[in-house]
Amino acid sequence: MSLAMSRNDLAEYMAQIFPQVHRDFVIEELHEDSIVMRLVVEDRHLRPGGTVSGPSMFGLADVSVYALILARKGRLSLAVTTNSSLDFLRKPLGGKDMIAHCRMLKLGRSLAVGDVLMFSEGSDKPVARATMTYSLPPEGSAAAAFG
Amino acid sequence: MSLAMSRNDLAEYMAQIFPQVHRDFVIEELHEDSIVMRLVVEDRHLRPGGTVSGPSMFGLADVSVYALILARKGRLSLAVTTNSSLDFLRKPLGGKDMIAHCRMLKLGRSLAVGDVLMFSEGSDKPVARATMTYSLPPEGSAAAAFG
Amino acid sequence: MSLAMSRNDLAEYMAQIFPQVHRDFVIEELHEDSIVMRLVVEDRHLRPGGTVSGPSMFGLADVSVYALILARKGRLSLAVTTNSSLDFLRKPLGGKDMIAHCRMLKLGRSLAVGDVLMFSEGSDKPVARATMTYSLPPEGSAAAAFG
Amino acid sequence: MSLAMSRNDLAEYMAQIFPQVHRDFVIEELHEDSIVMRLVVEDRHLRPGGTVSGPSMFGLADVSVYALILARKGRLSLAVTTNSSLDFLRKPLGGKDMIAHCRMLKLGRSLAVGDVLMFSEGSDKPVARATMTYSLPPEGSAAAAFG
Repeated sequence: MSLAMSRNDLAEYMAQIFPQVHRDFVIEELHEDSIVMRLVVEDRHLRPGGTVSGPSMFGLADVSVYALILARKGRLSLAVTTNSSLDFLRKPLGGKDMIAHCRMLKLGRSLAVGDVLMFSEGSDKPVARATMTYSLPPEGSAAAAFG
Repeated sequence: MSLAMSRNDLAEYMAQIFPQVHRDFVIEELHEDSIVMRLVVEDRHLRPGGTVSGPSMFGLADVSVYALILARKGRLSLAVTTNSSLDFLRKPLGGKDMIAHCRMLKLGRSLAVGDVLMFSEGSDKPVARATMTYSLPPEGSAAAAFG
Repeated sequence: MSLAMSRNDLAEYMAQIFPQVHRDFVIEELHEDSIVMRLVVEDRHLRPGGTVSGPSMFGLADVSVYALILARKGRLSLAVTTNSSLDFLRKPLGGKDMIAHCRMLKLGRSLAVGDVLMFSEGSDKPVARATMTYSLPPEGSAAAAFG
Repeated sequence: MSLAMSRNDLAEYMAQIFPQVHRDFVIEELHEDSIVMRLVVEDRHLRPGGTVSGPSMFGLADVSVYALILARKGRLSLAVTTNSSLDFLRKPLGGKDMIAHCRMLKLGRSLAVGDVLMFSEGSDKPVARATMTYSLPPEGSAAAAFG
């Protein structure tokens, strides 16, 4: 097990493939089996009341696991989210970025599973927990991406 | 079991409480135990490749169940999403709105659970499935909203 | 889409492959995209208090979706549960069998997803909801069963 | 945050309330925010093929989180499982006990959430992951247990 991309390579590649949103996400740490990803919280990530919205937390979890798959499998890897579960545990702190700690639980031939704990920056109480499953189609078979 | 709000009242109320996003969502049908909600797909709901993104589908499922809780319990109801599970089944069709069919499975004193099937308009093959759980704190106790 | 096995063939095949537990389960109905399965509730399915236990409901949901995959794909199909989500909605009625209504949401090349509503016999209020995902490895490749 | 019961008290109490199954489970470690629980694998926990069954893993996860709630909240605590998600990651090793590592993510006034990683004894690769949510009804209100 080793990384196919460095943190810099991964950040550059994500900027290419996610031109609309890559500024929202900053890779804080990258290890072989884990990644720490920051969501730079802007107004568009908030829900009424001023805290980070559910879709924004879903997006953070999804991007975190996907980035770790890319770092391990390399550019051009196909991966499609097939399942997710999320638990919303506490109200996020207002005015704080969200920090996601993601572990790879399985990186198989056809499925990858990562879990994610999300925190408001500066707090050690988790705001949300997520697990994301990805289908990894055989190289070149985009048609197979949805299983 | 009966509705506390008509479809028109519900639409007006959602426009008040979700001023940023209410134009994204149209209530197509409202029944006592179910609702049909349309996501009017715009560029901001798409991911690279041009299909509806995961966060947008999460948001559609979340809004659908929440709207049905409001219709049943009435304005001012507090409800906080505590859990969700989603399965992504097929690639959405490009250029089509998403239509969510949501059933209330349980509307208890302190928890509500709804499930949702999402389709690309004009197709009968589900694109995604979701279940959302809400905590319903006692009236007036916003502090209790996260259980 | 058509069935590879009749209800009788399926019941016989399940008796062969699940010799320990097949008497617990009775196929009530079998259609192309759905199955109705009865759990014949015995003492071993109960938890303290006398209602059907969580593991028994998990087992009922798992067997229901698996049986429907077999009916569609035929004997010898390999299928491994990779993900499940369950919501427990109401206390089951004491002294009643559980009836599971299962729909196939997706039966793809490599993944199958079914969802299940479970009722105490004679009630129309769901006791539990489940979604089960199966990995369908290529024929003959048992080693790939876990993705 | 501190424990309301010691490991010995908890083991004794579980023997009282789960007379049928308490011999299946051994508390290996108990801390304020975590517990390690062993499933002593017997034939009845296996599925065809000889590995630990899905319902047995569900039961292990459920008992682990419930035991940790008891240890924190004390005897007589009411707690009802309302939601669970499980990911099955790898085939368990044959002939090995299962070891569950459970963390409490939230122990609120009305909801508790714990997550669990399960391993075959002697392996550091997770076999399964689970999250369990419990509704904690107000003391004495058994009727409210299902929310």
